[in-house]
Amino acid sequence: MAGGEQKKGGGEQKKAGGGGKKKEVKKETGLGLSFTKDENFGEWYSEVVVNGEMIEYYDISGCYILRPWAMSIWENMQTFFDAEIKKMKVKNCYFPLFVSPGVLQKEKDHIEGFAPEVAWVTKSGESDLEVPIAIRPTSETVMYPYYSKWIRGHRDLPLKLNQWCNVVRWEFSNPTPFIRSREFLWQEGHTAFATKEEADTEVLQILELYRRIYEEFLAIPVTKGRKSELEKFAGGLYTTSVEAFIPNTGRGIQGATSHCLGQNFAKMFEINFENEKGEKSMVWQNSWAYSTRTIGVMVMVHGDNKGLVLPPKVAALQVIVIPVPYKDADTQGIFDACAATVAILSDAGICAEADLRENYSPGWKYSNWEMKGVPLRIEIGPRDLANNQVRAVRRDNGEKTDISRVFLVEQVRGMLEKIQQNLFDVAKQKRDACIEVVKTWDEFIKALGQKKLILAPWCNEEEVEKDVKARTKGEMGAAKSLCTPFEQPELPEGTKCFASGKPATKWTYWGRSY
Amino acid sequence: MAGGEQKKGGGEQKKAGGGGKKKEVKKETGLGLSFTKDENFGEWYSEVVVNGEMIEYYDISGCYILRPWAMSIWENMQTFFDAEIKKMKVKNCYFPLFVSPGVLQKEKDHIEGFAPEVAWVTKSGESDLEVPIAIRPTSETVMYPYYSKWIRGHRDLPLKLNQWCNVVRWEFSNPTPFIRSREFLWQEGHTAFATKEEADTEVLQILELYRRIYEEFLAIPVTKGRKSELEKFAGGLYTTSVEAFIPNTGRGIQGATSHCLGQNFAKMFEINFENEKGEKSMVWQNSWAYSTRTIGVMVMVHGDNKGLVLPPKVAALQVIVIPVPYKDADTQGIFDACAATVAILSDAGICAEADLRENYSPGWKYSNWEMKGVPLRIEIGPRDLANNQVRAVRRDNGEKTDISRVFLVEQVRGMLEKIQQNLFDVAKQKRDACIEVVKTWDEFIKALGQKKLILAPWCNEEEVEKDVKARTKGEMGAAKSLCTPFEQPELPEGTKCFASGKPATKWTYWGRSY
Repeated sequence: MAGGEQKKGGGEQKKAGGGGKKKEVKKETGLGLSFTKDENFGEWYSEVVVNGEMIEYYDISGCYILRPWAMSIWENMQTFFDAEIKKMKVKNCYFPLFVSPGVLQKEKDHIEGFAPEVAWVTKSGESDLEVPIAIRPTSETVMYPYYSKWIRGHRDLPLKLNQWCNVVRWEFSNPTPFIRSREFLWQEGHTAFATKEEADTEVLQILELYRRIYEEFLAIPVTKGRKSELEKFAGGLYTTSVEAFIPNTGRGIQGATSHCLGQNFAKMFEINFENEKGEKSMVWQNSWAYSTRTIGVMVMVHGDNKGLVLPPKVAALQVIVIPVPYKDADTQGIFDACAATVAILSDAGICAEADLRENYSPGWKYSNWEMKGVPLRIEIGPRDLANNQVRAVRRDNGEKTDISRVFLVEQVRGMLEKIQQNLFDVAKQKRDACIEVVKTWDEFIKALGQKKLILAPWCNEEEVEKDVKARTKGEMGAAKSLCTPFEQPELPEGTKCFASGKPATKWTYWGRSY
Repeated sequence: MAGGEQKKGGGEQKKAGGGGKKKEVKKETGLGLSFTKDENFGEWYSEVVVNGEMIEYYDISGCYILRPWAMSIWENMQTFFDAEIKKMKVKNCYFPLFVSPGVLQKEKDHIEGFAPEVAWVTKSGESDLEVPIAIRPTSETVMYPYYSKWIRGHRDLPLKLNQWCNVVRWEFSNPTPFIRSREFLWQEGHTAFATKEEADTEVLQILELYRRIYEEFLAIPVTKGRKSELEKFAGGLYTTSVEAFIPNTGRGIQGATSHCLGQNFAKMFEINFENEKGEKSMVWQNSWAYSTRTIGVMVMVHGDNKGLVLPPKVAALQVIVIPVPYKDADTQGIFDACAATVAILSDAGICAEADLRENYSPGWKYSNWEMKGVPLRIEIGPRDLANNQVRAVRRDNGEKTDISRVFLVEQVRGMLEKIQQNLFDVAKQKRDACIEVVKTWDEFIKALGQKKLILAPWCNEEEVEKDVKARTKGEMGAAKSLCTPFEQPELPEGTKCFASGKPATKWTYWGRSY
């Protein structure tokens, strides 16, 4: 499942998105980042996830601690997605972490895709196990023997299960928090249908939920499309994905994948049923997943040189209220106003807290909460108190607004909505500015050098993609197809493939990727 | 953490609660159980969790598939507990599955308790790892090196983290679904405080939540108390637990544990802070956990010879509505009334579904939903339709009531509450009937033979407990202390320990256990 996710690109990103080398960058004192997003993206990223208190580096390479600040974002997305799939009658379950080798190796293409990354348990206590046992890299082979058992007749269909769990892929490429880690959290949905039509429909329903997670929650524009044969899920029929783009590194990133597995696994695992006519049929299957990678994409897209920038819809804390006492002004009154402001916002369902710590200056607090990416800061000083107002400062653009306390809730709610929208708009603008339409190999190479997201007419042949990869190999990593977008620009009759010169069949996005 | 949970009793329960030997007992056709709860409890349990569609046996011994019917119960408890600990300012996080050997072995008593059960990853793909890596059996040693890093001053305290995750304990004793499995799901809370008083207080706050999970949600009476030195968590200061009892097997079962770790781990992992006076101090720590074992206890306590019996507060489905058509009666009208009933109940927040399958008889459906333990069945036949009523049948006691459709919601809600209460009352009555107060060794041995939950005056000496274990060893397993209940009956001056004859200090529960 999610074949490409957290999977491809061995060694490609040492300079672009790394972080494995630079451990424990958190500073003991002071605030601010030592690297800028534009000048040293990789170090900036490592630093911002640590200083923003999302991640702590762990003493096993490629494993990371998800701190509460990251976990709450994961939980917010989970609340949305879990409710949506339950509406679709998907049920949650939990299958074991361990897979026996015989089952793991049953689907040949599938295991070829995952074998090099599988972690094996061979000992318990001081004893060797009789047979080594694998840790799931994904759960197709864990689950499908039981689908074969549970599905007998057409009334057992559709079968729609999902699990929220951890998976392990022991990769040796440069690990990056959220983006590429040896253990990660995800949901994996596994469904079986009587007909291909039902499976096809669900693939797109789920993909739409993934689009919503990225666009509505994380405020990140994504492109829905289909992966090439070379990039599809190992063992599946076809893979759809939502693809994001990181302008700073000029790399595409697979956001989440929804696969139609066709009947390949059904054949291997003998998942048959008696249809309404009493004939033996084989099921059609899908699998789909999104992972904690989503959080990394969010950091990369929105973060800035002051730290994280969290979209209000996923932020654990939407508003931080900071008292700004001044000399002999009414300090107690200011503190009380802060507490009252939090109470009013909380009652209205807005997540707000006051930072009333007395041993830090207001300036230090501003920087601290900017580092953590809280969408809106409210300052209350003597003048605000006198005027029965508060000052609101947006994290996304620094804009300052005085708000009458009479209209507090409406105004804050409105500002949070604006921030959410603005984050998306700015991200889309930046992403769109990177899109380059090319028609020839020379244009392609030039655009690739300029870190563009390349849209090119393609003949859709696997050999040609292999050839593109071979011809673009280098320090920065090879280019590959990202997806063939469902929304296709017009392809004039006679358009040639940018790489092979053969007739083009579709417009496809190309670029380097995570 | 939860040292005794899912841990003790090697080989003790082959006859009492087993299930490892009997795999795949689910029948292909027909309903009903082949074993009775009274005559063959172990086989009955295995069969009921499989036929009730909670568990599927997995091809790796000691690992089980949690099917949606079990998972939804887990989620219902999770929703309650997660909200409660968030009120206590506990935050969720996620630490890695893997532990490096050096860290794992840092706390000596702790690792001695867990070492024999630790699963080791030694290979990835075809390559041997440089150093074998352990899979967490619990996360004290995973987390605390970072607590040491994050906690510097008194303002960093308290630190309260929790994670929902899987853990692995590779046991060789007879595995039992939910009750003893090699991988299980749980929450583990890990908190650090400046003072012992705060830690002590939290231990009991959490224990009260565990009591509520058992008593209010699972309708299972539990006893709050303190574990003996021999039974406490490996490496901790003291362990509190909620203890349940299975009358059929006469075994106690540790329901969940809340440990005060004292400063033992703080010492090993150097978790220090500067207190308000600027002096270096060491933190006081707690850890606490409950696991999917809860579901197994529920099945054991409430299940009967018709299958599962689910308490309404945790059941995914509270009401099943079944049409009972009859010859030339108005079948469509009956089906419509069923659908309308579901709609009305659902709107009122009651989880209801109709079983409108046409290829099964009402009788078959009754048995099917009884097997799955749905708390309330509603039948609608021609007479009900004519009288604008429905017939409600309680799963717990079979009681039938005709309900006017005018008062449907109120009546159903009332019945669900009664079922919840009745399940608890009956379970408590059965549990209480097993309690035997003993004062001498002879009485103790007799009561043990009668599968009693034994309350005895004890001198509270570790050597005496070891001696009791040695003297009661046998096919059924040794007796041990279950807990010293917080609610103590009066202990008259001069009362002697039942086992040693020395002065008794407390009343303590004893028995065989899971």
